[in-house]
Amino acid sequence: MSTTPTTTKQWKLTSNPKGLPTIKDNFKLEDAQIPELKDGQVLLKSLYFSNDPAQRGWMDHYEDESRLYVPPIHVGEVVRAGMIAEVVQSKSADLKEGDQVQAFGGWTQYSVQDAKGLNVLKPLPGGLPVTHYLGALGLTGLTAYYGVKEIMRAGPDDVVIVSGAAGAAGSMAVQIAKNIIGCKRVIGIAGGEKKCKWVKELGADECLDYKASTFAEDLIKATPDFCNAYFDNVGGEILDLILSRMARNGRIAACGAISDYNAGDAKSGIKNWFNVISMRLEIKGFIVMDYLHKVGEVQQILRKGLEEKKLHIADAEHVVPTKIEDVPTTWLTLFSGGNTGKLITKLL
Amino acid sequence: MSTTPTTTKQWKLTSNPKGLPTIKDNFKLEDAQIPELKDGQVLLKSLYFSNDPAQRGWMDHYEDESRLYVPPIHVGEVVRAGMIAEVVQSKSADLKEGDQVQAFGGWTQYSVQDAKGLNVLKPLPGGLPVTHYLGALGLTGLTAYYGVKEIMRAGPDDVVIVSGAAGAAGSMAVQIAKNIIGCKRVIGIAGGEKKCKWVKELGADECLDYKASTFAEDLIKATPDFCNAYFDNVGGEILDLILSRMARNGRIAACGAISDYNAGDAKSGIKNWFNVISMRLEIKGFIVMDYLHKVGEVQQILRKGLEEKKLHIADAEHVVPTKIEDVPTTWLTLFSGGNTGKLITKLL
Repeated sequence: MSTTPTTTKQWKLTSNPKGLPTIKDNFKLEDAQIPELKDGQVLLKSLYFSNDPAQRGWMDHYEDESRLYVPPIHVGEVVRAGMIAEVVQSKSADLKEGDQVQAFGGWTQYSVQDAKGLNVLKPLPGGLPVTHYLGALGLTGLTAYYGVKEIMRAGPDDVVIVSGAAGAAGSMAVQIAKNIIGCKRVIGIAGGEKKCKWVKELGADECLDYKASTFAEDLIKATPDFCNAYFDNVGGEILDLILSRMARNGRIAACGAISDYNAGDAKSGIKNWFNVISMRLEIKGFIVMDYLHKVGEVQQILRKGLEEKKLHIADAEHVVPTKIEDVPTTWLTLFSGGNTGKLITKLL
Repeated sequence: MSTTPTTTKQWKLTSNPKGLPTIKDNFKLEDAQIPELKDGQVLLKSLYFSNDPAQRGWMDHYEDESRLYVPPIHVGEVVRAGMIAEVVQSKSADLKEGDQVQAFGGWTQYSVQDAKGLNVLKPLPGGLPVTHYLGALGLTGLTAYYGVKEIMRAGPDDVVIVSGAAGAAGSMAVQIAKNIIGCKRVIGIAGGEKKCKWVKELGADECLDYKASTFAEDLIKATPDFCNAYFDNVGGEILDLILSRMARNGRIAACGAISDYNAGDAKSGIKNWFNVISMRLEIKGFIVMDYLHKVGEVQQILRKGLEEKKLHIADAEHVVPTKIEDVPTTWLTLFSGGNTGKLITKLL
């Protein structure tokens, strides 16, 4: 048994980023004392971090924090992240050393948390790694399922577009729309040929490369009957283009706006708004945190999809072994299009 | 009895406007022969024209007309308009000379139409003029009621914002929200002090002048608890500002986008999109043509509101006596903010 650690390396936010964060300007690695455990607490060793575009939004400064769905990361705080961790010391009857749990933690090697609310992870079928609890079978899967099924109300007669289709939520949304719901036609949008090829392997009828110079024309060609339901992970120019390709009574699930997160005042702005009126579109923004009560039900549906081989999640995650010194570098690849599927940091 | 006319003066569209239409570039007044009546037809004399921002959209060129809710006005056609007309000659058993009817006609003194589908206008209570069938008790009233009640689902606990609040649909939406539904707080937005004063007389708790240099601050001050439901008649920058003032789970009824109609490529674009996601907003575009089956039911509710003196429509219309030569000039005041309430042309 190893000696209990007394210090940890951790990444703090040193300033609110303007545009794309940089390590030099916005983050700082420092050593910190680990506080002593109180009754009911455990010491966690971080094993895996979830990398999510939403974290970028948490790093901004907000005049009015009451408008946020989770508090921001204030300057001076450890950068928050979803994680899988191992209990290395316990003062709780509920958890013992060696248990693996899912938690909201941060970019740190060790952290002290209350045991209450932490659940021991059960092994997954087919020998799938527990990291999928951070992705396909966790909040990512819930986001995709809920967005496709409840927000877009996608059905067998619908032409569906999914942007960010090679990303974590997008790659699940494509599979759920095509392989579970059986939508008439599912069109992915992703950056580059390699990602597009993978999205088609997941089940998409077609995948358009938004980096291609012909993208706008490709989108028109791909939607001769327009689009009934759009799962939007990106916002910005792609959303604007798709507004002009929506069919009457089309539904848009507004899930993310990654194109805006680092754009600051340089946002291009949505100009095709009139289509919302003329096509009677319905747009609904949603945050997966509102649907946590659905996680059990949806996990069951997704596990069934796995057993019936309708879902392919083995390659829907992208695990990057990373030293604590390089945690922000791995996270930043989210914004350079570096990941295919869910981007997970394996802390070395 | 007057002699039956054989010619009519009429305004044709000569080219698709770029930006704000001008008489010189886009319209032409000409004399035309009136065709002889066939069985079942009537000759109509135009009495009043409805002036609607939507007409501007009909004047554009569309690559794909299947995406429009009504066909556009093609170059060479008479400019289409809703109207009240009098039957001056009839070859139909259903209508007789002197009957007043509501019809889709155009900017012309006389027109020949099939009698089928034209209904004789019944007198309104309280001696109100029949012109209200073009506004408060017609499609305008239906638009406002349906938007407030069904699309925004406004209730007594809601803070409601109505833009274009001194316009035809807006002035009705304010009254319906405050005086019929009893919303907690109704905030109008209109251009200029005079209009704002009138909107408050209609029942609004407050009315903000979007032309004031302090408008953005005024909006923040007026919405300390944010806004639950927004009736959007204008789109553009005002919509963009309001996105940042919507409360969680807020609803937006997208009814019009007058700020865009003449903007061409110079649209400012919507930049506060992320609020749609973070605040879980629901946006629904609607077109009153889809709800024509509701017109009877809504007219009954609005007539009841009139009897109970909850609605004030006597001054909710702005009738401009106009010679046929000046019909486009009157219509263009829609876009210069010239009207208070429903703008109606009385053809001299």
